[in-house]
Amino acid sequence: MAGYVLEDITDDEVERQRALYGPFTQAVRELVDAVIRTEVDDDEVRAVQAEVEALTARLRARQLEGSYGVRFTPAGRGRPWGNPVVGLRNAAAPPVEVERDPAGRAWASFHLGAAFEGPPGLVHGGVSAMILDQMLGEATGAGGKPGMTGTLTLRYRRGTPLGDLRCEAWIDRTEGIKTWAKGHLMDADGVTVEAEGLFILPRWARERLQAENPRYFE
Amino acid sequence: MAGYVLEDITDDEVERQRALYGPFTQAVRELVDAVIRTEVDDDEVRAVQAEVEALTARLRARQLEGSYGVRFTPAGRGRPWGNPVVGLRNAAAPPVEVERDPAGRAWASFHLGAAFEGPPGLVHGGVSAMILDQMLGEATGAGGKPGMTGTLTLRYRRGTPLGDLRCEAWIDRTEGIKTWAKGHLMDADGVTVEAEGLFILPRWARERLQAENPRYFE
Repeated sequence: MAGYVLEDITDDEVERQRALYGPFTQAVRELVDAVIRTEVDDDEVRAVQAEVEALTARLRARQLEGSYGVRFTPAGRGRPWGNPVVGLRNAAAPPVEVERDPAGRAWASFHLGAAFEGPPGLVHGGVSAMILDQMLGEATGAGGKPGMTGTLTLRYRRGTPLGDLRCEAWIDRTEGIKTWAKGHLMDADGVTVEAEGLFILPRWARERLQAENPRYFE
Repeated sequence: MAGYVLEDITDDEVERQRALYGPFTQAVRELVDAVIRTEVDDDEVRAVQAEVEALTARLRARQLEGSYGVRFTPAGRGRPWGNPVVGLRNAAAPPVEVERDPAGRAWASFHLGAAFEGPPGLVHGGVSAMILDQMLGEATGAGGKPGMTGTLTLRYRRGTPLGDLRCEAWIDRTEGIKTWAKGHLMDADGVTVEAEGLFILPRWARERLQAENPRYFE
């Protein structure tokens, strides 16, 4: 069962896993793109499908019962590797590699291809929302004010073209357990989408975190 | 290059493609899930990666230059098959299969697994936003008021558990080229996330649509 799991592994072991699963996931990410764009014959599509099914069976020979959850090392390093925005093991994630500073800022540059298209040639508005939600949450976490999204408001100034993009987010203000964050998505010509969100660590989440990992509340 | 493309194909041909690409994409969707959850040995991961790379090369032997775009049949049937929420050929999409009525309502039941996880066991808040953006847009389109997202506001009432979910959306009001839509995401116990959005067909999009497919503006 997924949870906030404290794993007794070293940073070296995390690096070993990163070196293994990063390129593996990237290979499957390329496959996802190729499935959208391929124009090979029907017989070839069916042949590839059969091979994909065989590979999935090999991977499922031993697997987690549920979802990945979020793992922590004893040093407190988090691994949200199933996350659909930043997850190292999620081939559906762009992935977004986030940089942070403890003043409560987070930023990232990344590329969005065919799997993220809404209107032709443009990023799906919901994908922009998804990435901004993650990045605003990253900024609040970086600033020591982690929380779950309470409200999120997006303003779409113009279409965001597929391709190379940047996202920036920062803490706007805090008030007790509430933190407001702002951010935007940009292409080379400037801001395309603006976001503002309220992040709160709700009681049930505090209690659940505390029950599963009391040491993080010491 | 992606665009709003009018293809001269029959409904039968669309059905043939659906029967081919639907199961193919589902097979890759299962692979994405298995990549997150597998616990097989490192050597097996590397062996599967090599095979995935070979399959991708086979699919890329002939492929679209860019993204999929949105295709239309002469009968006006749209195929947003690359779409990250509803796309038949997008293995990163849940996919959400939308039902609609011309009064401006859209609804869907679907399952979200490991690839959509944010907090442990819960749907990523950004994924909820992405699906609601699509569904509000579906409602406005169903009601004959298509548009791109202008603003979108989400209120997260509680965590949305991974698993079987439902999303409902409807047109709230319209004013010229502006349409406001509302909707929510639900689990078996009721509403988890509420959304409200303003949808507009901006001038650049109207001009582009008209240039590419004048017949849709006759």
